[in-house]
Amino acid sequence: MFGLFSKKWNPDGLHCYVTGGSTGLGLSLAKLLVRRGANVSIVARDQAKLDKALEELEIEKQSPNQRIYAYSFGLDTAQASTEALEAVCRPYDGEVPDATFTCAGASRPEFFVQMTEEDLVKGMSNGYWVQAWTAWAVSKKLVKQEKRGKITLVSSTLGYMSIVGYASYSPAKHALRGLADTLHSEMLLYGIGVHIFFPPTMFTPGYKEENKTKPKITLKIEESDGGLTSDQAAMALFQGVEKGQAHITGDLITSLFRASTRGTAPKNNWIVDGLYDMIAYVATPVWRASVDKMVASHAAEHRERLREQQFFL
Amino acid sequence: MFGLFSKKWNPDGLHCYVTGGSTGLGLSLAKLLVRRGANVSIVARDQAKLDKALEELEIEKQSPNQRIYAYSFGLDTAQASTEALEAVCRPYDGEVPDATFTCAGASRPEFFVQMTEEDLVKGMSNGYWVQAWTAWAVSKKLVKQEKRGKITLVSSTLGYMSIVGYASYSPAKHALRGLADTLHSEMLLYGIGVHIFFPPTMFTPGYKEENKTKPKITLKIEESDGGLTSDQAAMALFQGVEKGQAHITGDLITSLFRASTRGTAPKNNWIVDGLYDMIAYVATPVWRASVDKMVASHAAEHRERLREQQFFL
Repeated sequence: MFGLFSKKWNPDGLHCYVTGGSTGLGLSLAKLLVRRGANVSIVARDQAKLDKALEELEIEKQSPNQRIYAYSFGLDTAQASTEALEAVCRPYDGEVPDATFTCAGASRPEFFVQMTEEDLVKGMSNGYWVQAWTAWAVSKKLVKQEKRGKITLVSSTLGYMSIVGYASYSPAKHALRGLADTLHSEMLLYGIGVHIFFPPTMFTPGYKEENKTKPKITLKIEESDGGLTSDQAAMALFQGVEKGQAHITGDLITSLFRASTRGTAPKNNWIVDGLYDMIAYVATPVWRASVDKMVASHAAEHRERLREQQFFL
Repeated sequence: MFGLFSKKWNPDGLHCYVTGGSTGLGLSLAKLLVRRGANVSIVARDQAKLDKALEELEIEKQSPNQRIYAYSFGLDTAQASTEALEAVCRPYDGEVPDATFTCAGASRPEFFVQMTEEDLVKGMSNGYWVQAWTAWAVSKKLVKQEKRGKITLVSSTLGYMSIVGYASYSPAKHALRGLADTLHSEMLLYGIGVHIFFPPTMFTPGYKEENKTKPKITLKIEESDGGLTSDQAAMALFQGVEKGQAHITGDLITSLFRASTRGTAPKNNWIVDGLYDMIAYVATPVWRASVDKMVASHAAEHRERLREQQFFL
């Protein structure tokens, strides 16, 4: 698996299932898989976006035999995710996809004390369950059909660390990591491969949406961060899966966090990861101190905001 | 805060709120806090257990002025947790407790593909929401009352890593870590301290309960692990809070995982944590290889179990 001559995973001719495949990372990944010869099924909620995505995917076909389908489903309940998977399997005589990529999700930053019950429940739903239910439905089918396959979850840099504003999102993305690490162990029972991707900021429609509610202090902390386009992120995800990496990262900062919060996850490269970890050991506390200072010095302005919004009444 | 002459946190005369305080870690912690002179309020569901706990707590009183109260509430919804907190605040003229310790929770291990929708939802509820809602209700009150206070969450070794069997529990315990790391940053805005404890196996009534459904392979992997009594765990938690540690661990194995998955969490001790991290860098992959081997070699026996339980029908 990690040898010099190990065979890379190749999606050519396989059936790949991409959730959240109508936009952002999901769409970029779906295109990439089509270019690599895969049959691709995408699921998302919005029919208009699915129609547009389908057109874009058709253009990428390498052969007229490639099959590309799109289905409109919500994915945030066990039942919806199960029904979506049933629909995806139908043209393949009920056979479960060879590889599943759960790219669905959304984030809505806000201050914890101003979040409503609904904000927190939705955060877990849009950050965790929307992927966990698909992983659950797919796992059951893979085991029942005694088929080896792949499941790739999508967490975030915020699945390794967190800052002010992400009290509904970061727990969900940490939970996905916990699920992936559990399944990486458990799916050894069936020969099923489990991967998880930790993308940084991605310049997608979802990112524009989340910035609308993002607290100013959170925006300020993130100001200096780089980011990836969804095409770059999809390529990083794909290459990690190709190489069989358990935890996949596509930028330096998240790689530092990966190395310094690896836990029991297999290393991607002993030497590079060790180097990253050493850098992080010194650099992270420096980063932390500067960010903590920014947050603390924002207190007065924040109190003013709370007062204006009648929080204290 | 970390200096040689820093003042340790002292609960004497403070009002401490302990959820899950009728049994296990919560009860041990409540006793310890009473012995240290705190006024203690406990919340749990079972009235008979609360009555018994109350008797045990009365014995530990250092002064007749100490106030000890017990309330029966569920805590797994926003409303229940809010109502429990209201009740806890009532004898104090509505003032929010000085320190809150969320010790409520339960685990029910099972194979992922055999878990029902209910198993997974309950896992998140009993592992995450049962604490998150209290943290949410307490945070809002602390900020509204412009009071500095402390919130201590209780995760698990399984909030740092995971193995086969914990697909409903480990994600929830990871989510708590994500919440604590977010709040550790965000609560700088209000001067509120946030801590999180990662206990290993604790020999409690809850542990006996979870072993009833625990897969054989999971029991086998855990066979060689040590564990703590709830009194030992409560002491470790308390000492960590005394010292102002962000991430608290009470045994060597979890300390290794803490050091090797510290992310951006502040270090407890630069030298010891660095040493732990170096040990973990080499030891964890060895541990992992042996556990992976155990899981993979359990595949045939597991398949037989699935067949017997008619999973493939």
